[in-house]
This record gives sequence, structure tokens and C-alpha cells, in this order.
Amino acid sequence: MAVAGASGYAGGEILRLLLLHPGLRDGRLELGSLCAAGNAGERLGSISPHLVPLADRVLEPTDVATLRQHDLVFLALPHGASAELAAELPPSTRIVDCGADFRLTDPTAWARWYGGVHAGSWPYGLPELPGLRARLRGAGRIAVPGCYPTAASLALAPAVAAGIVAPRVSVVAVSGTSGAGKALKPNLLGSEVMGSVGAYGVGGVHRHTPEIAQNLSAVAGTPVTVSFTPILAPMPRGILATCTAVTTVDVDEARAVYADAYRAEPFVHLLPANVFPQTGSVLGSNTVSLGVTVDADAGQLVVVAAIDNLTKGTAGGAVQCMNLALGFDETEGLSTVGVAP
Amino acid sequence: MAVAGASGYAGGEILRLLLLHPGLRDGRLELGSLCAAGNAGERLGSISPHLVPLADRVLEPTDVATLRQHDLVFLALPHGASAELAAELPPSTRIVDCGADFRLTDPTAWARWYGGVHAGSWPYGLPELPGLRARLRGAGRIAVPGCYPTAASLALAPAVAAGIVAPRVSVVAVSGTSGAGKALKPNLLGSEVMGSVGAYGVGGVHRHTPEIAQNLSAVAGTPVTVSFTPILAPMPRGILATCTAVTTVDVDEARAVYADAYRAEPFVHLLPANVFPQTGSVLGSNTVSLGVTVDADAGQLVVVAAIDNLTKGTAGGAVQCMNLALGFDETEGLSTVGVAP
Amino acid sequence: MAVAGASGYAGGEILRLLLLHPGLRDGRLELGSLCAAGNAGERLGSISPHLVPLADRVLEPTDVATLRQHDLVFLALPHGASAELAAELPPSTRIVDCGADFRLTDPTAWARWYGGVHAGSWPYGLPELPGLRARLRGAGRIAVPGCYPTAASLALAPAVAAGIVAPRVSVVAVSGTSGAGKALKPNLLGSEVMGSVGAYGVGGVHRHTPEIAQNLSAVAGTPVTVSFTPILAPMPRGILATCTAVTTVDVDEARAVYADAYRAEPFVHLLPANVFPQTGSVLGSNTVSLGVTVDADAGQLVVVAAIDNLTKGTAGGAVQCMNLALGFDETEGLSTVGVAP
Amino acid sequence: MAVAGASGYAGGEILRLLLLHPGLRDGRLELGSLCAAGNAGERLGSISPHLVPLADRVLEPTDVATLRQHDLVFLALPHGASAELAAELPPSTRIVDCGADFRLTDPTAWARWYGGVHAGSWPYGLPELPGLRARLRGAGRIAVPGCYPTAASLALAPAVAAGIVAPRVSVVAVSGTSGAGKALKPNLLGSEVMGSVGAYGVGGVHRHTPEIAQNLSAVAGTPVTVSFTPILAPMPRGILATCTAVTTVDVDEARAVYADAYRAEPFVHLLPANVFPQTGSVLGSNTVSLGVTVDADAGQLVVVAAIDNLTKGTAGGAVQCMNLALGFDETEGLSTVGVAP
Repeated sequence: MAVAGASGYAGGEILRLLLLHPGLRDGRLELGSLCAAGNAGERLGSISPHLVPLADRVLEPTDVATLRQHDLVFLALPHGASAELAAELPPSTRIVDCGADFRLTDPTAWARWYGGVHAGSWPYGLPELPGLRARLRGAGRIAVPGCYPTAASLALAPAVAAGIVAPRVSVVAVSGTSGAGKALKPNLLGSEVMGSVGAYGVGGVHRHTPEIAQNLSAVAGTPVTVSFTPILAPMPRGILATCTAVTTVDVDEARAVYADAYRAEPFVHLLPANVFPQTGSVLGSNTVSLGVTVDADAGQLVVVAAIDNLTKGTAGGAVQCMNLALGFDETEGLSTVGVAP
Repeated sequence: MAVAGASGYAGGEILRLLLLHPGLRDGRLELGSLCAAGNAGERLGSISPHLVPLADRVLEPTDVATLRQHDLVFLALPHGASAELAAELPPSTRIVDCGADFRLTDPTAWARWYGGVHAGSWPYGLPELPGLRARLRGAGRIAVPGCYPTAASLALAPAVAAGIVAPRVSVVAVSGTSGAGKALKPNLLGSEVMGSVGAYGVGGVHRHTPEIAQNLSAVAGTPVTVSFTPILAPMPRGILATCTAVTTVDVDEARAVYADAYRAEPFVHLLPANVFPQTGSVLGSNTVSLGVTVDADAGQLVVVAAIDNLTKGTAGGAVQCMNLALGFDETEGLSTVGVAP
Repeated sequence: MAVAGASGYAGGEILRLLLLHPGLRDGRLELGSLCAAGNAGERLGSISPHLVPLADRVLEPTDVATLRQHDLVFLALPHGASAELAAELPPSTRIVDCGADFRLTDPTAWARWYGGVHAGSWPYGLPELPGLRARLRGAGRIAVPGCYPTAASLALAPAVAAGIVAPRVSVVAVSGTSGAGKALKPNLLGSEVMGSVGAYGVGGVHRHTPEIAQNLSAVAGTPVTVSFTPILAPMPRGILATCTAVTTVDVDEARAVYADAYRAEPFVHLLPANVFPQTGSVLGSNTVSLGVTVDADAGQLVVVAAIDNLTKGTAGGAVQCMNLALGFDETEGLSTVGVAP
Repeated sequence: MAVAGASGYAGGEILRLLLLHPGLRDGRLELGSLCAAGNAGERLGSISPHLVPLADRVLEPTDVATLRQHDLVFLALPHGASAELAAELPPSTRIVDCGADFRLTDPTAWARWYGGVHAGSWPYGLPELPGLRARLRGAGRIAVPGCYPTAASLALAPAVAAGIVAPRVSVVAVSGTSGAGKALKPNLLGSEVMGSVGAYGVGGVHRHTPEIAQNLSAVAGTPVTVSFTPILAPMPRGILATCTAVTTVDVDEARAVYADAYRAEPFVHLLPANVFPQTGSVLGSNTVSLGVTVDADAGQLVVVAAIDNLTKGTAGGAVQCMNLALGFDETEGLSTVGVAP
């Protein structure tokens, strides 16, 4: 297999997880080309020194000729680049795309939020949502969800599916800085982010908004309106999504809905009553940690979800999808144990 | 003047601000007793080494005999302690209380949220709310607001006062750890909080909820329901409150309401359209930084407020109130310039 | 096997690593009693929520009756507690002790630095030091090194062994806060440590000083004097040790000494010339990352070592020792891949 | 006065301090042109939102025509730019330069460490060093020291001046990220620096090495060799320098030397015996906090110094120099009170 975007944060996390995957040790998987754009030609060790076993690997340029030699390709590229590459790769090359290009099913939504031609949509890589796991087994093309939509959709899907909340939800999600990638922007400098929390993309303008709405509307069978506010926090990893919606059920009924929905899910961890998650507990793991309650005074369901944006929110989700696509056990190489403190 | 609770974070911040106050240099103010509980007898320098000019001051025990010798006393004590002390201090001793004891006007709310006997209510130290500044001028007793209520109330008051939102608001507020005080709890250890964001007091159970509701209901002239979720972030200081409410007005109308409301306020800084605050910009300052917009798709007003929880959220608010109580210029000793990066 | 001190940071890290160990999946290892002191009776999930698979395990009290039922016991206890327990456990119970009780060979040093009776010394669990690996294979009692001594000893051992430096070394080591354990001390609160770096135990008074001196003197075959300064940095994990000593060799010769010494070591990663490590690259891994150079102007060898204090510095070292004691492959369950960014 | 480099971290800190300077309120100072390079034409509020009172100021281009209209100019520019500008500014324009161009007195050292033509040297802006204060009073040109040299020189000058240490010192200094400026480099991204400590410029290659050596050699009256290792820590501000040198005196004698040297210095705070500083205590202040001890076993003097790299280490030092140049009280506008926690 190959990884395109191997020098970025998502690509680096895919490599970290593959290095821990049993398939690599028993020969079912092989790490082929590691491709990059501007960093092609460099030792991986000089860019991602944490990937010690791959330190002396040299990054190759990202081109179709290289990628088509592999039976499976992870794409961890800026939005837009995936569609272009995918158009030239043969059907025999499985593609697990971490970009946005194939996530939205509605061309109008695509045009509004991303602009340009809609390249189409692929099976959506969130197996925990109703009906999606079956479509991912053996799939040749997979669109891995965005990090915020992973957290928000899993936090709210059971409630909207069961009809216990009004179809108008609010998501305020705090993210670590790696969610913005390795982009060289002043506001992502350590000096700026440490000791400070800030909101951005406020007022429903973040591109993950339509993806959350698409997921929840599909599950609800009716349009769901989403108010989404992303917040940047001083930590490298993690998303904590606080999700609220008007409800009339009590806390026990709400918690029963979630217990039912996620009883068999290996990566969803429903916390006991009155316990709420923190992102530190899921660092480096594929766990979705959920705290569910009802604010009776305000008449609101409140669900707080914690994930590692790079693991379950991107690369872990991608490896989980790869496992399904290749017929492996869905959990192989993915841990529910976080690195803490 | 005296400061009770001088070894805590709120008390330390009061001292930091008083050391910068012109009144200290020109003799209008004098730093008398610095009182503590368990730390009485210790050098302040061994507890709060940042207060260099006071390093050799020895902390005195917190007792009425000591405090009553001063014409003004700041109380920065655990909830419950203020009421007890206040009952024994003479009317001639002005009291600026940073605790909760005298904030709630409704005895029923007090009984539900804090328990025990309601000690009464004092002029509420948030001069930016309609009608309150006049009550604070020359006041002998002042109840300084909680840190979350300061942020949330100033973020939402103009909208509820103008009636441009439904009387049902949602507040998700991210706070630095100093908001929890210097309590020796495992979840406040550096190892636990760094690299992690977590929710606590979820589901409307945080004691600042009724205080926010009281403020907004007073301003609205009608009961306002509040859904409040506090979140702990890996930084020592700062609150970022994301406040939403259903609205039918557009962004220009909403922004005009806020511009009108805060035109003359020295500490409220309304950011330009599409700009949103970060807590790092208000570190150590008394500024309330506000970003205001409308999410037209979701039909929601979104206001993001940033304050320093220890400055405008506690000690800065307290000094601002002291200035009003003593007839000083309201802004003396209080800066709008943050310490960044 | 059992883990005593399972609710602390070292114990939690042992559990994290054991959960990833192949021996647990294939039945060679079994997680028996998880013991604690004050937390006995609690769910592990309420204390260490990152250990999701063990969330519902209930902590047992730490007593000999419980521990003696297991064939191997990890002790991750405060100094002094290990010796007491060890005295009552049968020889058939293997003990891997993460405390200091059995590290120092010299009773006089023990008396000076720890006080009380010297309980003796056990095979020292740093297999990378000359001659130690053989003593650890099949061992029934093992004293795992302290975190600072692990970093400093591996940084300096090749140079002192080869005699290319004067026997007078200086170590300035920056550590994350978990090195201090879960102790409830004001200076370990998140509010105090974030945004601040501070020195403590300055002037050769830290208890890891004699342990470093013991290791280096043994390797050198002559007494080595150690100046050691520990520094606390705002991060949960990691040690960066800057080690210097007067030398007359040039950089190539110095680097050749290190390349020779560590050629076959699975966990020591010697960085290329002019590259120096950062702790973030070894987070959660058992890697020791070394940068080696010579400052020709100052006539000093400078070696910078990065480890994760909880992994290679404590629990990873302990599991590595367990592997040797039980005749497993030394690297089983231990990764060289860090969790970054 | 004007500030060139007003959009950078050093320039921003100069503005923060000037905004608090009494001279601005009483008319002795006036904030004229704020100049920038790439950011010219932008609102300062969009770049440095913490400078609220200057939010609507528009940055001007950095050119001689603009700067020469002012009687005093702060230069906070990349190395090399100052010499070029200074050559064209009239003698009547006082210049306080925060760059390196005029710090080194030895043209050979300049050629080796910076390259190119040596522009000369100006009075060195560290008034606490013997003999320098007098040269700064009324000075028309001032070279403000580098941040590391400020900490290291003040930590070691008394000892080398008194001859109580060997002329061979070691400095391991941990710095916050703002010391590297607002440069858009991958290793300065928040995702990279948070949770990680790393060494850089190891082996005597950092450009501050000759500056430290120059200062200490001047004070000693004999060449002093310096081994200097800079370390980057996950915090925006602060330098903690651990400085060691071989000594034969005991701790009392050493401490007496420092007490003597700094008795009258307003910004040097000598901590009590066995107490050592942390950078968090001097955040935003002009304090140099010193802990002094002797490690008798190792025969070493150990001095730990904490400063805020942007305040005393750059902009605070610059304002202190301005005060001396203009005949103001040296401490005006500069606080010894840190912002903590």
C-alpha cells in the first residue's frame, strides 16, 4: 500500500497506526511508497522523527505512476487533490480518502461549500452510523469523514434517529491544533495558540457544517438544522464536542437510547451517568468517549463527545475502513487505550 | 485596605492589580493586612512569587479583628465564608466580595444551588449591565459577579434587552484552570489538564447557571432559560463563552444592537464583523472582547466573548467596583492591553 | 500478574503497555489484581479513564495476601513501600520494582540520600548498560531505574566507558510533570505549571544524583562526579537531558563511540549529526533518542537525550525487564513509534 | 517616537509597555509611526489584537523618510536590517536597537557568527552590568542585548567579576517560543511545540554564545569560555537559564557576592537560600529572578535565572534603556510584578 501526504499530520498518523498493525508483521500488509509534495526527496526522519522505524525512508513525489503500483492507497491531501488523483487511478486500486472531495452527496451543497465541480460521493467511512458498515465491507473507494463530523455525528445520531430531540441541533466543538494541519499560518504558531482559546469559523461558515447536517438528516429521515461553532484550544490533538438539542425525554430514557445504539460498537465508550469525557483520555486511541445527560431545566439533551481528531477523527477511522475494505477484523491495529496523562 | 484570601488566585490577582493602581502611588490607597487561612504566618513570596514588591509581607490570619481596622476589605474566600465575616464587620467598612454569598436575589434559588440560609443580596458588580453602575457608585457592599456570568451576561444582555432573541439561550464556555482556584484536586494537576480539554458540571448543574439566568432575566424583563456547559481547557487563565440564541434579525441589525449597547463602555471591545476573540488577547487585562454574528442558516445569533477569568472575571471587576465605590475614575489601575503572545 | 500502585501514573502506564502486549492476547500473560492504597474499592475507569478495557475493574487493597497469589508483581509505590512488601513475598514471586528501594548498591549512599535501613540492591533494570542485560534474563527481582538516571546514564555511559571525557559530568534535565507522580501539591497544579518552567532540587540535592553517579562510575571503573539540575516543564511527559563533560576528542570520534556502543540496541536511536531530539517524538514510546556533538570552542562533549519518563523512564523499562525476566523477546509490547504531534 | 517592526513579537511588546508608560499619559512620550514590512497597510488590531487601544492604527511601511521624523526610534527588526537603517538616520534621532547588529565589539567575532561587514558597536543596553549604566544615560544609540545573554550574563557576572569561579561556564537555557519571533517555520507550529521540549543550536553554534562570552569576559577582565545550549519549551514566554561553573567557595560566600552586586538593582530579585525561580513568576514583568547555590559535592556554583524573554529580555530592556537615554527614572513604566498564575 501507499500513503500520499505522508509528511502531513494525517499521513503521519496513518503511518503510526500501520506500524502497529498486526498485518504488517504477518505480511498481509506492506508499506510501499510514502509520497509527499514539497517534502519529496527528504528523509522521513527529518520531518516526522516520531516514526523511528521509517526514519531512513525517502519521500517520493505524489504521482499517479507511483500510486497505481499499489493495491491500496491512502490519500491524506488538501481538498481537491484527491478527486484529481482518483480520476486517474484504476478501479483495482482501493482508495481510502481522508479529504473532503467525496463526502458530500448533494452537488448543490458541494458547490456552495467547496465550489467547483462535484466529483461524486463514495461510501462514507463512519461504520457506526446506521447502514454504513455494510457498504464499507469490501469497498474499493471510501470517503473518510471529517474530524468534527465524526465527533458530532456519533454524539447526536442516536438521539435524532430515535426522534427524541427536535431536528435543530447545536454543536460547539473544541479542537486541538493538528486539525488545521501543518499549514504555516501565524495563528497556528505555538506562541499564538499556547495559553489561549479562540473561536473561528463562527456563524455556520465552517465546511464541516453541511457534512454534519447530511449525516444527521440521513439518520433522522428528515432535514436537521445544525449550528456549528469550532474552537481552537492549546493542545496538539483532541476534539471535545458539546452537542445540545431540545428534548422532552428524561435522562434515563435518553441514556437508554444511547446504550441501545452503541451496545455492540467496539470503539464507542458510553460513560456512566454524570460522567463526562476529556480528550486526554482518548489521545492516540480510536475511542469515541460519550457523556450523555438531560438538562431538565433547560429542556435540552446534552451529549459531550471526545475523540482524538487524528486517530478516530482521521487516520484511525481510515484504518478502520481499510480493515473493513480488506475483510480484516474491524478493530485490528486500533487500540481503545489512550496515552495519558 | 485589606485583602482576605490573599494567598489564593483571586486574592493574588487583586494584589497584582492594586500594585499597579495609581492610588497606591499617590496615597489614596494603602495595602494593609493581607490575610489567609492555612497560609497565615508565611511570607507571601513563598506562595505568590510573582508579587515581588510584597515578597516579604507575612500573611495574617483572617479574622474580624484584623479586617475591621480597614476602611475597605476585599473578600476572596470560599463560598459561605463571606456571609459569616460580613455579618460582623461594621457598616463603615466597605466590602467588595468576590464570593457567591450575596449575588443571588432569590432565596429559593440560593437554597437550591448553594443550600443553607440566604444571607441576602448586595449591589451586583457588573456596571456594564443596564442600571447597575449607578447602584455601585459609593456603595458600601458589593457582590462581584462570577467569572462565567460576567462573560455570558455581557455577551447576551444587549440581545435579550433588545428582544432580538428568544428567551432561551445556550452558553458553552471554555475556562482556564485558575477558575477552579488553588484547590488540591487530582483533576486540576498539571499532568491531567495539559493536552486535554474536558467538560464538567454538564446538564445545567453548575452554580453559575442561576446567576446567568438572573442577570439575563432582569435585563429582558421576562424569565430567560439558560443551558450552560462549562469546559476546562489547558491554560491557566481565560474564558471563551460561545453564546447562542434563536433570532430572526440579520447580522447587521444584531451588530447594531451591540454597538449601541456598548458604545461608551471602556472595557467592552466589540470586534469588527467576522472577527472573533481569543482569550490570549485579554490575558491580564480588564477587556471583554466580543465577536457578534448571525448564523442565517441555523437562525441563531452567535456571540463569542473572551475575558480573563481572574481579571475582568474576578479581581479586575472587583477593582472596577472599588473605583466606583470610592468615587475614583472607573478605569483607574485597569488596563485594556493584554499580555500576548 | 499483579500491579501494585495501579492508580498512579507509573502503574497506569504499566497497565497501558500490558494491554498492548502480545502476551496478553496469546495467554502468556494475564492481568490479575490491580492494587491501590487510598483508591482501593474504586472503579479504575473513574481514576484512569484512558484505560478503557479495564474501566470496570475494581481496585483491590495493596496487601501481601493478594500479591503473593501472582507469579509476577509490578510495584509502583512510594519509596520505602517496596522494601516492606518485598520482604514478605515468596522467592517464587518475581518482583519488578519501580521504586528506589533496591537501586543503590552502597548502604552509605542509601543512608545519606534516603535515610533508614538499606534493604539491599537488586539487578538494575537498564539492559543497555554494559553487563546488565545478562543479569536481568530470568531474574526474580529487578530494580527499575529512576527516570532521570535512565536518560542521563544512557546519554553519558558510552563516553565515560570509552574514557573520552573527564570524570566530571553535568546534567541539566527538563522533565514533564508526571515525573512527580499524582501528588497533590500546589506547585503541581495545572495553573502553576502551564506557561512556566522552573528549577527545583538545585545544587545536587535531588535523589537521582547518586544513582546517576553510581551508574557512570561503574561503567567508567572510576568515580564520576555528577552535577545534576532537574527542571520542571509545562508538559505531562518527557525528559530532555542535556549532558556535558570536558573532552579532547572531535565530533567524529565522539559519534563513533556512540554508534559502536548502541549499534545493536533496539530502543536507542542515535540521530544524524547536528540533529537533536525533542521529547514529543518519543511520547508513549520506549525510544531513547540521542543527539551527540562536540563543542570545540568550549572543549565539551554535548549529548542530548530524550525519553518518555513514564515509558522508557519507568513503565516501559519495567516491561522490558519483565520480558527479559520471563524469557520473552526483549522488545515485545514495546514500540519505538512515538505519538506525535 | 516610532517603532519599526511593530507587527512582530518584540515590537508588540514595546508597544504594550509604552501603552503602560506614565510618559504617554503626561505627554513626555507620544506614539508616532508604527512601521512594518509585509504587514504595512493593515490594522494593528488584526495582527496584535491584545493592543486594544491601538486596534485601529494602520501600520506604515518601514522607511527612513518616516522614521527620521521621530526623535526616538525603536528598531525591532531581523538581524542586518538595523545597520542599514541606522546608517541613514540622523544623529539627532535616538535609536534603541533590539537587533544584533551593534552588540558585538569584535569585528572578527561578528564575521564568524553573523558574516558580512561589522557595522560597529553601540553602548550595550544592560545597565546592571558594571560600568554600563553610565554609558546609557543620555545615549543616542543603544544596542539592546539578546534575550539569552541578558539572562546568562546577569546570572554569572557577579561570580566572574568576583573571581569565585573558573573562567569556563556552562549555560543551559530553556526558552519560550516567542524568542524565535513570528517566523513561519514548521518547528514553531503549536502542534509541534506543545507537549514537547527540544534542544536546538547545540554544540556552541547559537549566535548568542559570543555575546555571553563578550559580556562575561569584559566583567572578568580575562577571557571566559562559554558552553551554551538553548532549549525550546512549550510556553510562549520566558527563559530559565541554568548556569554552572567550577567554584571553591561555599554557598554563603557565593550568595554574599550576589547580594552585594545586586543590592541596589531595581529589577534583580535575589531569591532566599534554597529557593529557585520559575519563569511564570516574571511573566510580563521586567524582573530578573535569581536563585544562587553551591553544589559542594560537584564543586560547582549553580545559578538559575528567570526572565521574560520579551520583557526584560527584549522590550522591557529596551524601555529601560529609553528611560536612561531620555533622563527619565530608569524604572518608569516597568513593573516587577508578574502575571501569574
